[in-house]
Amino acid sequence: MTEEYKFDNSVELFKRAVEVIPGGIYGSKAPGFVIPGSYPYYFKKGKGCRLWDADGNEYIDYLCGYGSQILGYGYDEVDNAAAEAMRAGDLLNGPQPEMVELAETLTKQIDGMDWAVFAKNGTDTTSLAVSMARVHTGKKKIIMARGAYHGAANWCSTNVFPELDDRKDVLSFTYNNLEELCSLFAKHRGEIAAIILTPYHHPAFGPQIMPAEGFYERVKNLTKAEGALFIMDDIRCNFRLSLAGSHSYFGVEPDLITMGKSIANGQPISVLMGTDNLKSTAGSFFITGTFWMSGVPFTASLITLKIMQEVNLIEHLNRIGGMLKNGIRSAAADAGFKAEITGAAAIPFLTFENDPDLYINQVFCSEMTKRGIYLHPHHNWFISYAHKDEDIEKTLETAREAFKLTAAKLG
Amino acid sequence: MTEEYKFDNSVELFKRAVEVIPGGIYGSKAPGFVIPGSYPYYFKKGKGCRLWDADGNEYIDYLCGYGSQILGYGYDEVDNAAAEAMRAGDLLNGPQPEMVELAETLTKQIDGMDWAVFAKNGTDTTSLAVSMARVHTGKKKIIMARGAYHGAANWCSTNVFPELDDRKDVLSFTYNNLEELCSLFAKHRGEIAAIILTPYHHPAFGPQIMPAEGFYERVKNLTKAEGALFIMDDIRCNFRLSLAGSHSYFGVEPDLITMGKSIANGQPISVLMGTDNLKSTAGSFFITGTFWMSGVPFTASLITLKIMQEVNLIEHLNRIGGMLKNGIRSAAADAGFKAEITGAAAIPFLTFENDPDLYINQVFCSEMTKRGIYLHPHHNWFISYAHKDEDIEKTLETAREAFKLTAAKLG
Repeated sequence: MTEEYKFDNSVELFKRAVEVIPGGIYGSKAPGFVIPGSYPYYFKKGKGCRLWDADGNEYIDYLCGYGSQILGYGYDEVDNAAAEAMRAGDLLNGPQPEMVELAETLTKQIDGMDWAVFAKNGTDTTSLAVSMARVHTGKKKIIMARGAYHGAANWCSTNVFPELDDRKDVLSFTYNNLEELCSLFAKHRGEIAAIILTPYHHPAFGPQIMPAEGFYERVKNLTKAEGALFIMDDIRCNFRLSLAGSHSYFGVEPDLITMGKSIANGQPISVLMGTDNLKSTAGSFFITGTFWMSGVPFTASLITLKIMQEVNLIEHLNRIGGMLKNGIRSAAADAGFKAEITGAAAIPFLTFENDPDLYINQVFCSEMTKRGIYLHPHHNWFISYAHKDEDIEKTLETAREAFKLTAAKLG
Repeated sequence: MTEEYKFDNSVELFKRAVEVIPGGIYGSKAPGFVIPGSYPYYFKKGKGCRLWDADGNEYIDYLCGYGSQILGYGYDEVDNAAAEAMRAGDLLNGPQPEMVELAETLTKQIDGMDWAVFAKNGTDTTSLAVSMARVHTGKKKIIMARGAYHGAANWCSTNVFPELDDRKDVLSFTYNNLEELCSLFAKHRGEIAAIILTPYHHPAFGPQIMPAEGFYERVKNLTKAEGALFIMDDIRCNFRLSLAGSHSYFGVEPDLITMGKSIANGQPISVLMGTDNLKSTAGSFFITGTFWMSGVPFTASLITLKIMQEVNLIEHLNRIGGMLKNGIRSAAADAGFKAEITGAAAIPFLTFENDPDLYINQVFCSEMTKRGIYLHPHHNWFISYAHKDEDIEKTLETAREAFKLTAAKLG
């Protein structure tokens, strides 16, 4: 039996934090999202697919900085270039040549996209996309899938002051329910500025859902008939399905796409890309932020994109993700669990049958985490280039133990 | 006569940029804000108060990365710590201990503030402050000064889709006009959530304006009587008036303050701080962004704050800023110009009498920039710790030449 980790330093730091930070840790990283006592709250180091917490516990990590570390933590070739760029002066009075190079690289690499603007947060770009769609079409309403995550701005987050109308023009439908989507388009004909979708559906707290046969074709036809735009929010899937954009993987043609997270292997940068006919609308916007033209993330992104191509990233992610998926599935079955792994190979998520409040998931994931395999019970996992065969083997060995422990705990 | 700089590489890069980026360069850094042909568009390096553009031209810089470089570009002690933090793994699955340390340091250092939450953009924090004020008070309306800049979100920027109501609850008054402010409070009694103000007024395209005698006292009384919050947007002035927060310099007590730009000497981080009675409202918000808990900016900020104290920053900025202010003023007078320098010593801005479209300012600033002194004709300037006596002397020598050239050009 593997010995269980202790999290004393995390607990101590959290006690100090609640004194000076509302909630101690906020957002998706809040301890309330995982089982208290079974997870570290603070981290000190990452290298490859390994992560060390504030107590010095070591993990094979399947969250990858919420997807951002697509090559793995502390990838030397990226970090060396970033450190050199930092010493040359990160944030100057205007852009560095690398900003132009990155826009040129992306417009060549990403299917059907003719221009790029850069920001920091994913939310910056989804919010810009929605505003541009409204300005471009002269219409107000935005359609999104119920439970989809597009950021933390008021129009798309839970922070809505009910009377403030931030969401009054945001309509929702159940993902893949074409009947409901068609009736939204019918009911609001002439009012719809855009539909915003992730490449496939990954709600928190539930299994991931692939687009149904014919879904995207219908979406494209509906938006075309309405004169609405199709925004693909590719921030979470970014470069884990295809290096030409996740829309390319599904063979669809959005008008605007947003990317972030993994585009610079964790350096802070996000990007909104669009088609030529939207370029003048985009050019009419005042788009700015103090740190948006800092040089380091552009340099890091150029090198990350180059490495992704060189190492044949997608093939690696699919193979390694497939190993994990099959291994977890059969380990679960061996322990008597009916479990499924949903989503793309590089973005897997585990769910158990008859587990409406995710309790079984929580127990299993915390047994894993306490034994050095960091899995999240409510949020999809991520595979990086740094995950190698031996990491998966070690993970599956621990999984077999954790499934047994979970079965025992549940009686 | 100093030889004039050429900007061929900048022009060449810009030609490439417009192909793949709407407008080529967007936001406040767009070439349209300065005189074409007299300014570089792309930069390659910064060190201390010196900046090098894409053509290799060297400048003594008075924009400091729009204020962010308060210790100067490439400050080794900050950059060394940042590089080391980066190699340990920048963006992990949750916060690093430095996030707690920074919140502890700031709550001790910043007058009257009991908690902190961190984000990336300044706009993230001003938008959060406004939303929190609305949730906390249960009211909708926000008052701001006409022409004040609080970010690039729809509620406060020029990117407003007119029918979308983003600004319908944002009221404006002329800075320092207490009569107008009082009538806004009277007219909208029971509806006002907050007033948001910069420590003093620095509109683009005009002289900076200090708060009038009794202004803040009245603001405080009005908000108190209304049950509204007073938000101090300290992003631009940040640490150039006082290390305890600019509100401390003016002896006022806001409920929420926002900081950014210089807090980590250019590393991307912003912070919203507040008083204890707002902590539970802040704790109820879902506050998140992919890169918001990256470790490098926290490390950089802790060291930047320490150095600011150690080097007695404010004294240096005031002395050097004072030298520049007085020198420019007398050089202008010697050349027959009626010019004034407004704002704090460390945040000066030059304006000429009878220059409604800032044409004289544009000519003067471009003569300076073409001779190696980077000044912005429409945006206030910034002094950093890296500006030394000899830099100011060199600047004033060039200014005397540029004022003469400007006088000659204007006939």
